[in-house]
Amino acid sequence: MKCAMAQINPTVGAMEANVRVMLEWAAAAADRGADLIVFPELAMTGYPPQDLLEKRDFIDRNLSCLQDLAQISHRIAVIVGHVDRSGLTAGRGLYNSVSLLREGKRAATGHKILLPTYDVFDEDRYFDPGERPCWVELCGERLGLTVCEDIWNPDFLGQEKRYHQDPVRELALERIDRLINISASPYCRGRPFSRLEMLQGVARRYQLPMIYVNQVGGNDELIFDGTSVALDQAGNVLRLGTSFEECCCDIDTHDSRLEEEFGEAAGREIDEMEEVSKALVLGLRDYARKCGFTDVVLGLSGGIDSAVVCALAAEALGPEHVWGIAMPSEYSTGHSLEDAEALARNLGIRYDVIPIHQGFNAFRQMLRPVFEGRPEDLAEENIQARVRGVILMGVSNKFGRLVLTTGNKSELAVGYCTLYGDMSGGLAVISDLLKTEVYRLARSINRDREIIPNRVLTKPPSAELRPDQKDEDSLPAYEVLDPILRGYVEEYLSPSELIRSGFDEATVRRVVGLVDRNEYKRKQAAPGLRVTNKAFGMGRRIPIVQRFEPR
Amino acid sequence: MKCAMAQINPTVGAMEANVRVMLEWAAAAADRGADLIVFPELAMTGYPPQDLLEKRDFIDRNLSCLQDLAQISHRIAVIVGHVDRSGLTAGRGLYNSVSLLREGKRAATGHKILLPTYDVFDEDRYFDPGERPCWVELCGERLGLTVCEDIWNPDFLGQEKRYHQDPVRELALERIDRLINISASPYCRGRPFSRLEMLQGVARRYQLPMIYVNQVGGNDELIFDGTSVALDQAGNVLRLGTSFEECCCDIDTHDSRLEEEFGEAAGREIDEMEEVSKALVLGLRDYARKCGFTDVVLGLSGGIDSAVVCALAAEALGPEHVWGIAMPSEYSTGHSLEDAEALARNLGIRYDVIPIHQGFNAFRQMLRPVFEGRPEDLAEENIQARVRGVILMGVSNKFGRLVLTTGNKSELAVGYCTLYGDMSGGLAVISDLLKTEVYRLARSINRDREIIPNRVLTKPPSAELRPDQKDEDSLPAYEVLDPILRGYVEEYLSPSELIRSGFDEATVRRVVGLVDRNEYKRKQAAPGLRVTNKAFGMGRRIPIVQRFEPR
Repeated sequence: MKCAMAQINPTVGAMEANVRVMLEWAAAAADRGADLIVFPELAMTGYPPQDLLEKRDFIDRNLSCLQDLAQISHRIAVIVGHVDRSGLTAGRGLYNSVSLLREGKRAATGHKILLPTYDVFDEDRYFDPGERPCWVELCGERLGLTVCEDIWNPDFLGQEKRYHQDPVRELALERIDRLINISASPYCRGRPFSRLEMLQGVARRYQLPMIYVNQVGGNDELIFDGTSVALDQAGNVLRLGTSFEECCCDIDTHDSRLEEEFGEAAGREIDEMEEVSKALVLGLRDYARKCGFTDVVLGLSGGIDSAVVCALAAEALGPEHVWGIAMPSEYSTGHSLEDAEALARNLGIRYDVIPIHQGFNAFRQMLRPVFEGRPEDLAEENIQARVRGVILMGVSNKFGRLVLTTGNKSELAVGYCTLYGDMSGGLAVISDLLKTEVYRLARSINRDREIIPNRVLTKPPSAELRPDQKDEDSLPAYEVLDPILRGYVEEYLSPSELIRSGFDEATVRRVVGLVDRNEYKRKQAAPGLRVTNKAFGMGRRIPIVQRFEPR
Repeated sequence: MKCAMAQINPTVGAMEANVRVMLEWAAAAADRGADLIVFPELAMTGYPPQDLLEKRDFIDRNLSCLQDLAQISHRIAVIVGHVDRSGLTAGRGLYNSVSLLREGKRAATGHKILLPTYDVFDEDRYFDPGERPCWVELCGERLGLTVCEDIWNPDFLGQEKRYHQDPVRELALERIDRLINISASPYCRGRPFSRLEMLQGVARRYQLPMIYVNQVGGNDELIFDGTSVALDQAGNVLRLGTSFEECCCDIDTHDSRLEEEFGEAAGREIDEMEEVSKALVLGLRDYARKCGFTDVVLGLSGGIDSAVVCALAAEALGPEHVWGIAMPSEYSTGHSLEDAEALARNLGIRYDVIPIHQGFNAFRQMLRPVFEGRPEDLAEENIQARVRGVILMGVSNKFGRLVLTTGNKSELAVGYCTLYGDMSGGLAVISDLLKTEVYRLARSINRDREIIPNRVLTKPPSAELRPDQKDEDSLPAYEVLDPILRGYVEEYLSPSELIRSGFDEATVRRVVGLVDRNEYKRKQAAPGLRVTNKAFGMGRRIPIVQRFEPR
């Protein structure tokens, strides 16, 4: 059997456009002599469609688009993910389904059995679980059809079991010849490789060759890396799709030659920050493109965060589509402007300087009657950040450009950022990278040549909102802060567990208190691209009003 | 049996404080001779605890607090909601449980079987479903213990069945004498009455007397109305808890006298906007109180929205804790300032005027080099709104006051609001009320005397961001817009269904397009108090990046 693994980048809700792409790819695969083409989970609707699934006409259109796609199945068999109605008298009424299309119609349909409902996933909200996994005969092979989570076996990840059922085991008992899995499995750091290891473990355990096709592209906070793969029954890699790009890999199931470039492409050897960089570039490009923006604008402070975001934006959209604006205040140092300008020059982007003292002074004067007699404090610092936000949003409104915010995860965690100030913007590009990781990413960006001026990497971080301010006046050193944040936010460790592992008690309690008290800021933050297994955003749902004091 | 129905207002996560309240109430009930006291669903943790449930120490503390509470059960039996560990080898690992405490320990524990996972509910994210409902013997009665959703029978609501199981039916087959239900059932308009009707239907269908105890209070977006009730087996109301207040109703199960004040308190006769007003006052008061704020500040435009929010705030917190600031621009009309001042005088709140032209001019000058040659447009309108936002946030930062945003649901739906401008603030008080409903609420507030100046209710709405601007220059009349929004947003009607029901096609398509394109603004909106069955916020999850064009 010749099979085309179609790692496409659908847009959520754009079902007609998604089907057009699938028809083109299927026709091309048929021309190449393929018997079967496999598309990702919910390729019809894009993933995650979220509450669009609650609209009746959304489900109808997805089903009529499935019929449109079936036309090509006179030439080539198609396996595709779509939404199906359950027809049950109770329940959600929908399935997350996989169908085999042949001779112009559905030959078989299976339903996702294991519905992830944790972190960023809400599938129990929308779908009923399938009861039994589905298998089909094609070209003399018995194919087991599974959808994403159905194949995730915690045994190979050292995790706790979330489900009582194991669809792969059930299919193995049905003596299938090959396991097909269609996925929309989002990226997080190291995931392309750990996922591949898990898949290899499954292939080996059940002695089953496997075809795994994953969605690629960015949808809101989520970035899908693709990294589709065909494995033999020993878990060897026969074909590997490129990560972070659309691609179609052809595999002849009678050909057992291994993927030549496997070593490099599998991700083990890849620099971790190079992987993150590719993910963020894709996420940024797709967010802009799918929202209809060609151009972005951002504030350049001369610091590391805005420099990294600017470099990623130039990579994602082309330097001619990126506009950097430096907005110095009376507290900005000379080197900040020099560094911002040097960065803009290195990248070849448009660069302007708009000093903010005029706006800042106007607010001080407007507020003088009510502020009378009170010393300057955080209020004035925030006003400066907000003046910058208003300037960027003004440019955004006037020129139709998307504003990128440049805050990192450390700042967002402890609230070292200003609502409606530096938090203003449509997309938070590096909000899932701790400050120390932003430095690592910057060094990775500078690997071949100095794009980000070296001084930006060496000077102490400062918000420059008051004279001689340094981040470390207000916060623990990032080398201390970041591991505490990783433990508390990403690994759910309690303060006492962190203290037992060697962190200073007072520092831990202070950091944890800051994280908990700043939930209200994050609730109004721009959507941020997710690159860890626990980002702030849709996958982390903490109440604002709560008084839990973790011990 | 003498039973105390304890309609308490727990704070999420404040388990020690919640237990202290429960111990006090239980001791008082024991003093009154009660055999049993019943507390709401998850009274231990407060509802909804959301991802706090993923912290191990959160679950531990909830269990040790349960032991603390059990001490009082030497004097009085206690039924209470808490989180329990499932001990299963697979699944979520937790139950949403109800326990009977007696003689210092747990006498029985049941687990919620039907886990709501729709709209604002995410229970499948956290909990495993119980398998069988639990019953216990107490004072010679066989009591069936159920948690919230377990008792919600769609037959009495004309809704589709979401579940295959019916715990009440199973308990009826066990020949229980009385159904106990502990709930955290949030308010939406008309819900106190429709919920009561549903409960009466259940009592009658199974000929079962019922004790229903619901949480009261505000937690983030959700407002819990309480409205606990005891019913006889014919569905007659024996006791009814006050809505929107903490209360403890005692019921002697051998006493069949009906609730005297039932007619009024049941909500059928109540003015709908009076109910909404009570809900919003509670939601606002609890949000401020539980976040640690005593004082609020808001912008007074002289329009209806800010007037209504201001009146609600004065009611919730006391006028001495409310500060209204008028921020006129060059486009503000004289009557706006007069109306804002009259409102402040009527309410007895602090009132200041801070004109914004200085800030507005500063931005025009700062931006002149980059705006050169472009006509004034929406960018300048937004700058004015943002100058106001910066002023209010400055006051918030300087004086530690919570900023209330004043936008309504119609504006938020079509994006007729400015991110980081009038959308700046910690709580959106009326963001779940359509503009026409804001008028109804205003008239309800003015029922006894003119609090909101009458001119505010009669003049045409205007954002006053350019000369002679009227909302209806940019939007359909609210009498047309609001029913379309109600249909599209709250009832999930498609454009073609709306057109078929008589709305102008072009208007429907335009409104629907505006709603869909403005998801990005709502994603960064302040949390808004929910008073309908479909509010923007945690219960409505639409991707920003999506291209579905509803027909």
